[in-house]
Amino acid sequence: MLIKSLLTTENKFNSTAELIEWIKRRNREVQVSVETIPFAEMEYWHQDKDGSLHHKSGRFFSIQGIKVQTDYGKINEWMQPIINQPEVGYLGILTKEFDGVLYFLMQAKIEPGNVNCVQISPTLQATKSNYRQVHQGKKPNYLDYFVNAKPEEILLDQLQSEQGARFLRKRNRNIIIKVSGEVEVKEDFRWMTLGQIKELACRNNMVNMDTRTVLSGLKLSDYQNPLDDNSQMTEFGRGMMLSSSTNHSLFDMRHHLSWLSGLKAKYDLLVFPTPIYNMPDWKVTDYEIIREDKKYFKVIGVRVTIANREVASWCQPLVAPMQQGLCAYIIKKINGVYHFLVQAKLECGNYDVMELAPTVQCLTGDYSKAIIKPPFCDYVLNARPEQIIFDTLQSEEGGRFYKEQNRNMLIEADDYFPIELPEHYTWMTLNQIYSFLCFNNFLNIQARSLLSAIQYR
Amino acid sequence: MLIKSLLTTENKFNSTAELIEWIKRRNREVQVSVETIPFAEMEYWHQDKDGSLHHKSGRFFSIQGIKVQTDYGKINEWMQPIINQPEVGYLGILTKEFDGVLYFLMQAKIEPGNVNCVQISPTLQATKSNYRQVHQGKKPNYLDYFVNAKPEEILLDQLQSEQGARFLRKRNRNIIIKVSGEVEVKEDFRWMTLGQIKELACRNNMVNMDTRTVLSGLKLSDYQNPLDDNSQMTEFGRGMMLSSSTNHSLFDMRHHLSWLSGLKAKYDLLVFPTPIYNMPDWKVTDYEIIREDKKYFKVIGVRVTIANREVASWCQPLVAPMQQGLCAYIIKKINGVYHFLVQAKLECGNYDVMELAPTVQCLTGDYSKAIIKPPFCDYVLNARPEQIIFDTLQSEEGGRFYKEQNRNMLIEADDYFPIELPEHYTWMTLNQIYSFLCFNNFLNIQARSLLSAIQYR
Repeated sequence: MLIKSLLTTENKFNSTAELIEWIKRRNREVQVSVETIPFAEMEYWHQDKDGSLHHKSGRFFSIQGIKVQTDYGKINEWMQPIINQPEVGYLGILTKEFDGVLYFLMQAKIEPGNVNCVQISPTLQATKSNYRQVHQGKKPNYLDYFVNAKPEEILLDQLQSEQGARFLRKRNRNIIIKVSGEVEVKEDFRWMTLGQIKELACRNNMVNMDTRTVLSGLKLSDYQNPLDDNSQMTEFGRGMMLSSSTNHSLFDMRHHLSWLSGLKAKYDLLVFPTPIYNMPDWKVTDYEIIREDKKYFKVIGVRVTIANREVASWCQPLVAPMQQGLCAYIIKKINGVYHFLVQAKLECGNYDVMELAPTVQCLTGDYSKAIIKPPFCDYVLNARPEQIIFDTLQSEEGGRFYKEQNRNMLIEADDYFPIELPEHYTWMTLNQIYSFLCFNNFLNIQARSLLSAIQYR
Repeated sequence: MLIKSLLTTENKFNSTAELIEWIKRRNREVQVSVETIPFAEMEYWHQDKDGSLHHKSGRFFSIQGIKVQTDYGKINEWMQPIINQPEVGYLGILTKEFDGVLYFLMQAKIEPGNVNCVQISPTLQATKSNYRQVHQGKKPNYLDYFVNAKPEEILLDQLQSEQGARFLRKRNRNIIIKVSGEVEVKEDFRWMTLGQIKELACRNNMVNMDTRTVLSGLKLSDYQNPLDDNSQMTEFGRGMMLSSSTNHSLFDMRHHLSWLSGLKAKYDLLVFPTPIYNMPDWKVTDYEIIREDKKYFKVIGVRVTIANREVASWCQPLVAPMQQGLCAYIIKKINGVYHFLVQAKLECGNYDVMELAPTVQCLTGDYSKAIIKPPFCDYVLNARPEQIIFDTLQSEEGGRFYKEQNRNMLIEADDYFPIELPEHYTWMTLNQIYSFLCFNNFLNIQARSLLSAIQYR
């Protein structure tokens, strides 16, 4: 199934400049106030006698304490709060072809934690509590298209993880559907091409995390013949297209699968519920669950008030990072094909012990002040300008995280960069990465988010 | 990489008759006594105040109570004991080529729960507690070959599940390696061809579960050119080889992945620890953890004494089924290619909510007496002799289960069998099943065990 002009930025509805202006205008129009309040004052929320925070419906999400035991890494036991949201939500994008061009129906969505308020979001972003209307709210827009999608309308349908250091085994259903009938474009929604979304993703905090994770699964070479119709592509874009379609690679899939089975078997990850009040290194105040040393992150309670056409207000906990993070892939042409330097990383909330992560992922600790930096961190931070392919700030999910933005980078290795790697690292082509993506829960959200940043034009 | 004569039964070391005689002799030579004893008398085991059973090392395995909540099926909440063994163990087979024939180094292994005592087992069957020598025992035979295997020696390396209704998220590393150097054949070990093992698997309770799960992952069409060297194959065998190599199928992989993502997203599975003493419907006596209605299974404590060349004795809990079970695939030629009727099944101990299971899997309830039987159960039980391709009794793991054997069947559907299926069921070619197998935890142990039964000769 080839879809022409997936990457074009020519849009019969809105130019990219108009879309940027639209997001800016929506940001001006809306007033979002996020006020830190004591946990005890959060309406519809309850703090348990062990310190955990629960929604009174018993659903939605909760903040719980966990004790982690593992033989991976230098710290083998710790306790921390974590977001527990056992429901699988929808992250869905509706697409439709107009005049041979595929358009994506995107939303200008307000999230309380966003550094700016409004970002470009999927058509549908709904927890099970949302769409089963636990909050008694109205039915999410476009929900029925996804619930009733026919198999032949589904371009992509994957269960993918969220941040493994912050969420306990959380997954979402990432789904892209292509419909043919008339689609009403509701207020706050616009049609965009994939090329336009990729242009917008080059700007800081413009395209939200949920959009990035859904689009990361779309394997372009399934839709665009790499030998054809690539006049709009840069040389780098053609290199990426080759990497995502070729079967030539340094290691074969059997090698990668065995490498990962070996690592998953080698390391234990045990997670036990534990009372938040009993966690050493953490203290619980009326307003915060925070580490004594102020590292990593803290949990706060907020009252959100959004004044727009109408006024909405609610309370919820948010997780606030204590520093900015860094996520970067190093890529390198090996035998003429771009390979990504991928690591297998254990995080306490992972569904399956280890997931594939970018070359460098420093989110929890402050990498800039660390004495011993993680492997390749210095290489990335000292990259020469001509090695830097991509370098923007991207937001984490504003519904759970308070003003969390991380530096996202794509770095091309120079000729002297070694092919030999430490045990937890390997080289994969994009084609191999996409094979893992299809089978769910293999790539972590940082690894996926960065993939969606790849520019072809 | 083609390995000639993978399926031959000509063995330069032992004929199949000799191997059968060897197992029979080992069964005669060994005396296994399994004596039911009170839990309190199990040496090195401890019954907690909540009723759970733990090894005093804190490792190995334990019997715990769980509460299960799910919106799948008719029963939405229940409690049960379950085996908790969070370690990933090795199930490894060492192979070596002699004169162009691949031989598998198999063991005649005693397990206390086996209906017969000795069955054919993988080269290495070791929990992490075993090979890290928690029991202070000696190092498992051949362990070093697996620990030190080079990537190019590894034919297969997968993390696969065990019984989801009995084990809490248990997995083993299924691994086959091919070595080239001299290999010492220790006492109780023999070289066998794959063809021989498959012949032996046609007999009741001869090839143990661990062997079956490891061999199930070996995709024959990767090694044997389906168009070549198939003179030893039956017409059915050639049909199976085609099904495992063709890309022609009723549904494509994207369809299957989306179907499974949808079902995994639709159903919640929540599992909480719960005290065994508080489980309604279950009672704990000095000797048993058993349901009041005597259904499903019970937990017993045993003292095992094995008298052979030397005498060994130890205590442990075992899980004893209350009836015999049934596992069956229905297969059907669709457009000239054999397709397997696979179901997506939720079991409480599953790693990822649902796994692919055979068409019929009745292990926990007594299917023969059920008024409303599961789908396709009657069809399988009433199959005409010419539809029955395979019908044997196979044992579950004798290290955990007491005399558990289940009927394993492969049934060819007649022309009138419908292609349309209920929501939780689909048709897959063998090639598609192998794609899922590679990526771990997609097929349950019953689904895998039955695959290993497929005969090509």
